[in-house]
Amino acid sequence: MLKTRFTETFGIKHPVVQGGMQWVGTAEMVAPVANAGALGFLTALTQPTPEALTKEIARCREMTDQPFGVNLTILPALTPPPYEEYRQAIIEAGIKIVETAGQNPAPHLPSFKEAGVKVLHKCTSVRHGVKAQSIGVDGISIDGFECAGHPGEDDIPGLILIPAAANQITIPMVASGGFGDGRGLAAALALGADGINMGTRFMCTQESPIHENVKKAMVEMDERSTNLIFRTLHNTARVARNSVSDEVVGIEAKGDASIDDVRHLVAGARGRIVFEDGDTEHGIWSAGMVLGLINDIPTVEELVTRIVAEAEELIKGRLANCLA
Amino acid sequence: MLKTRFTETFGIKHPVVQGGMQWVGTAEMVAPVANAGALGFLTALTQPTPEALTKEIARCREMTDQPFGVNLTILPALTPPPYEEYRQAIIEAGIKIVETAGQNPAPHLPSFKEAGVKVLHKCTSVRHGVKAQSIGVDGISIDGFECAGHPGEDDIPGLILIPAAANQITIPMVASGGFGDGRGLAAALALGADGINMGTRFMCTQESPIHENVKKAMVEMDERSTNLIFRTLHNTARVARNSVSDEVVGIEAKGDASIDDVRHLVAGARGRIVFEDGDTEHGIWSAGMVLGLINDIPTVEELVTRIVAEAEELIKGRLANCLA
Repeated sequence: MLKTRFTETFGIKHPVVQGGMQWVGTAEMVAPVANAGALGFLTALTQPTPEALTKEIARCREMTDQPFGVNLTILPALTPPPYEEYRQAIIEAGIKIVETAGQNPAPHLPSFKEAGVKVLHKCTSVRHGVKAQSIGVDGISIDGFECAGHPGEDDIPGLILIPAAANQITIPMVASGGFGDGRGLAAALALGADGINMGTRFMCTQESPIHENVKKAMVEMDERSTNLIFRTLHNTARVARNSVSDEVVGIEAKGDASIDDVRHLVAGARGRIVFEDGDTEHGIWSAGMVLGLINDIPTVEELVTRIVAEAEELIKGRLANCLA
Repeated sequence: MLKTRFTETFGIKHPVVQGGMQWVGTAEMVAPVANAGALGFLTALTQPTPEALTKEIARCREMTDQPFGVNLTILPALTPPPYEEYRQAIIEAGIKIVETAGQNPAPHLPSFKEAGVKVLHKCTSVRHGVKAQSIGVDGISIDGFECAGHPGEDDIPGLILIPAAANQITIPMVASGGFGDGRGLAAALALGADGINMGTRFMCTQESPIHENVKKAMVEMDERSTNLIFRTLHNTARVARNSVSDEVVGIEAKGDASIDDVRHLVAGARGRIVFEDGDTEHGIWSAGMVLGLINDIPTVEELVTRIVAEAEELIKGRLANCLA
C-alpha cells in the first residue's frame, strides 16, 4: 500500500488513475479499475447523450461497488455538445469525482462544488496547472509530452514538467504520460507527484474494450512506435505509428499541408474502426510512448497490484540500499 | 552519501557526472566537479591539438587531486581530427575514465582496455546502448530528448528511455538529459539508472567558464526556453531559444530549407561568441529543458552536495513515508 495526498484527498486505495479515454472509457474499463482499488473515469462524451451517460454510470455501478469518476473533456466546437446537461447527469447520478480536461473548467466548478464533487483537472503545462489551482480545482493531472492523445504544443516531458509543476502546485498532483510500471510510479513520487495516471497501459489489459489485435500490436510495439500528427494544425495528437499516421506526418512535413489535406487523409480512419475490426494498420488510434514498456496483457487487477508492489519494493529495496 | 553500481565501478564519491561539453569542458569546470566528489570530463576536442589536451590535463591536475576523465566525441567529418593521437594523449596522461560519444567507440576500445581505462559510452537510444554494451564498454550514459546539444532523432524522454534501456542494459548506467536536482537523481535511480549526468545545470555554476550574462539568462529562462534546430538536416540540436534559433526553426518549418540556408544563418552565430561577449540573444548556444528547474548560480560544491542530500532526504523521507 502506498499512501499519498492523492489517495487521502480523493479517497482511493492506490495512487493510480485511469483517466478519460474517448471510446475506451466505458464501464468495461472503469469497473475493473475501481475493483482493483485505482481511480477510473468513464468518458462522458463517449456516450452519445447525457441520458446514455446516466445509463452507463448505472451499468458501471452494477459492476463495482467501489468509487469511480467521470471525465468531462471540454473542447471548442461550432456546435458543442450539451456540456451543462452532461454535467447535470454526472451530479444527479451521485458521482463524486470528475476529471476535467481541455478548456478552462471554471464555468462548471460552482455546480460541482455545490454538489460535493471533487475536480481533478488535466492539463499539459505548468501555467495551465497554476491557473486551474487558482480557480479552485481539487487536484491537477499534469500530462507530459510522452502521452497518448493530446500532449499540447510545448513538448515538455514528465522529467521536467512534473518537478516544474511541483514547484508551484500545492494541491494534490497526478503525473500523466509515459507511465506503465512501478519504476514510473516511484519516479513520479520522487519528482513531486502524488500518483500516476495511465491511459495506454490500461488499454492493454484483458478487460479493456478494444480489439484483441490492437492489444497484441501494443505488446509488439516499442517506444519509437508513435507519431505526432496535426502539429501543423496546432492540435497535436500522439498516435500509433502506422501507414496512415506516417502519411499524415509526411504531408505535414512538406510544410504546405492545409487543414483540408490532413482532414481528408484522416477521414474514415478514425479510432472506432480500429476498435471494431482490429485493423491496427489502417486507422488512426491514440497510443503513448509507454508502448516501449508494455510487454504483456495482464488483468487490470494484476496490473495495478504489480505496479504498486514494484514501487513499494523499489522504495524499500533499491533506493534504500543506495543510502550508504 | 549515495552508493550505486556507478560509484563502485568508476570509483567516484557521488553518482553525479558532468559529461563532455564543447568549449565548456575545460579545467575550470572539471576541477571543481572533481573536488566536489562528482565525475567531470574534460572535452578533448575543445583543445585544438592533442598536445594542448595533454597540457589541459596537467593544468586540471594542478587544480584537483581527485579523479576526472576526458570526453572523446567521435563525429563523421571530411577531415576528421586526429582521434588516435587524442586517444594516445589521454592514455599517456594516465587518465583512467573516458566518456565516448557520437559514433561507435569500437576502434578505440582495445587501446583503452589495454591501458586500464574505463569507458562510459553516451548514446541516445536503447539500441545503441545495447550495441555499446555488447562490444565491451564499462558503462552507458543514456541521453534523453530533454538534453542540451544532440538528442538524436527518436525524441524519447528519460521517463521512457531510462527504464526501456534498463530492461536490456546490465552494466552501470547513467541517466542524462533533464537532470538538475535531487528529485531527478532519486527518479533516475527509481527508473533503473545508477546515477545522473548533467550539462546545462553545471554550466550555471559560479565556476563554469561561460559569460556571467549567460548564467543570468539561464536563471531567467524556463522549460519552454529551448529550440530544436537542424531537424531537417537529421542532426538535431537543442539550443537556447532566442532570435537566431527562432529564425532557424522558422526556416526549417517552411519545409524547403536547404542545408545551405540553415548553415548560412548559423554561420557567425556560434557558441564561442556567446561565451566571450555574453550576448545570449545573437548566438546559437546549447541548453537543455532543465532550464525550467534552474533558479540560482551556486558553486559546483554547493550544487553537488545539495543534489545528493536532496535525493537522500527524498528516499528516507517523502518516499518512505508513502509506505502505509
